[in-house]
Amino acid sequence: MSELPIALDAMGGDKAPQEIVDGALQAFHEFGLQSILVGKREEVEPLSGGELEIFHASEVISMHDDPAKATRSKKDSSLVRSAELVRDFKASAMVSAGNTGAAMASALFRMGRIKGVARPAIATTLPIPGHTPTVLLDSGANAECQPEWLLQFAEMGAVFSKVRYGIKRPKVALLSIGEESSKGTPLVKSTHAMIKEKAQSTDLFEFIGNVEGRDLLDAVADVVVTDGFTGNVALKTLEGSLKFFMKTLFNVMQTNDESKSASDILLKYLLPVASELDPDATGGAMLLGVQGICIISHGSSSAKAIVSALKVADELSKHNIVDQLRAAVS
Amino acid sequence: MSELPIALDAMGGDKAPQEIVDGALQAFHEFGLQSILVGKREEVEPLSGGELEIFHASEVISMHDDPAKATRSKKDSSLVRSAELVRDFKASAMVSAGNTGAAMASALFRMGRIKGVARPAIATTLPIPGHTPTVLLDSGANAECQPEWLLQFAEMGAVFSKVRYGIKRPKVALLSIGEESSKGTPLVKSTHAMIKEKAQSTDLFEFIGNVEGRDLLDAVADVVVTDGFTGNVALKTLEGSLKFFMKTLFNVMQTNDESKSASDILLKYLLPVASELDPDATGGAMLLGVQGICIISHGSSSAKAIVSALKVADELSKHNIVDQLRAAVS
Repeated sequence: MSELPIALDAMGGDKAPQEIVDGALQAFHEFGLQSILVGKREEVEPLSGGELEIFHASEVISMHDDPAKATRSKKDSSLVRSAELVRDFKASAMVSAGNTGAAMASALFRMGRIKGVARPAIATTLPIPGHTPTVLLDSGANAECQPEWLLQFAEMGAVFSKVRYGIKRPKVALLSIGEESSKGTPLVKSTHAMIKEKAQSTDLFEFIGNVEGRDLLDAVADVVVTDGFTGNVALKTLEGSLKFFMKTLFNVMQTNDESKSASDILLKYLLPVASELDPDATGGAMLLGVQGICIISHGSSSAKAIVSALKVADELSKHNIVDQLRAAVS
Repeated sequence: MSELPIALDAMGGDKAPQEIVDGALQAFHEFGLQSILVGKREEVEPLSGGELEIFHASEVISMHDDPAKATRSKKDSSLVRSAELVRDFKASAMVSAGNTGAAMASALFRMGRIKGVARPAIATTLPIPGHTPTVLLDSGANAECQPEWLLQFAEMGAVFSKVRYGIKRPKVALLSIGEESSKGTPLVKSTHAMIKEKAQSTDLFEFIGNVEGRDLLDAVADVVVTDGFTGNVALKTLEGSLKFFMKTLFNVMQTNDESKSASDILLKYLLPVASELDPDATGGAMLLGVQGICIISHGSSSAKAIVSALKVADELSKHNIVDQLRAAVS
């Protein structure tokens, strides 16, 4: 366990502060994880029962605030203060289920970039039952990218896959619209050549070439690299189809008494698999490339999601992921 | 029914020529649809039992051939000949389950573009149980696009949605990474402004703004416009996740005797819904913007998929979709 506590944005997310504080308490009771609850003391204190440290922040950045503007103007917001706690070595990591763009901006402006990193990227983990998850990056930080940035995403993604899932030499792939290196946009083609060349002189990762959208859940790659626009579209398409299939299946199950009783039996077997796909269990996305650990949990995070995120933050901190990222891009 | 037959590429697809010819025969017997089987007479004739006309073409463009090169060099291929039959008013439409790029190139080079169309686009239909499908375009013809092209995709997609699904004033959306018009790449932002302006002076469609990947199966839009790179990634991500969920569900069902018998009951209710999602039932994608109807069925098309594609081709031809597209972009 890290010696420093984790700065937890108690005000961020649709279910804040109740579920966020509940998550912090659960992580403390079950795993001994210490959080600093960052947010309005008058709202957070009654929920926390005095068990966890509170860092008062008088402002809140909402889901609808413009990220860059809000980060600049709301200097005493829970997000900005969380990032400062990491910068000032008062916390080992920050965790937020709030405004993703503002979390990124807070981390970037307060912690700063790792030297040599052109652009930080968001690494999301795609759960694949029976396999280690596939890391998808950039899943939304940079809508427009350059090949050099994507090469760094490959390096940073490989470090993340190694530290988080213990994969010794992660298989890196590039997201495109065909396996051939001639397929895709000019960005993809240049990046393909660049990663391929880099792979010949590094032990950090193996380059397996292009993959397509249909391969994302196939466990063919440990890390899939793409620009933040394509990555975000792909990620949200996956989320949307998961929701769609769950809803469709549930509707079918509810057709009548016969289908309902058959479903009661089947659900015993289905639920353990579904729980592997549960976004609350994946532990959130990480902003890679800033000088500190910033974990972004989804907006609808429950207490369970916060527990997962805190565990991931703690583990990455114990493994000094920022030092490993620094070494990889230097 | 059209007076002209449909040119069917008998050699295209993983299951050609057997399933392709079977599909043509089924469409003829069940719906009276006339096809010309385009391909190697010695292979096609024994399968067709002399019931359908055959147009001999001595060459075949394979799935792995380079589209542009193969279209240029294999002048007597079933694909190129199919496109020529449409150009020469010998066929009302062409249908192929072969090499997508080569089908596009054949149609483009032999039929030519509709006057005023900058770039033809592939329109794919996303099945949504209980709703009319959503039209996604461009789903792969143009990896790199300009805003003006995307505006035309909006217009052509609206015509397609209107003709194929009878939607009077289709709701058009732009695929992005946030609902706000400020979100996305420069391409998306320029396109947003351009479609918005156009929507104020046309009755052809209504513009509902940006949608995200998670909205694709939500039936919020009738037409979703994007560049061919993003569209292809989104489409294949959807296909991949559909396959993933089906496989996962099937594995769970097979766990043991108890799960198997519960599944036997549930499948009665599940199969009708699954059949609505069956790619074989959607009728293939259409290349919009060329001077003729070109329907591209997926590579693994069965006879059933070919029947669907022939029915769609026939219907679009009866509704003179090419004239309607010409009017919309003029």
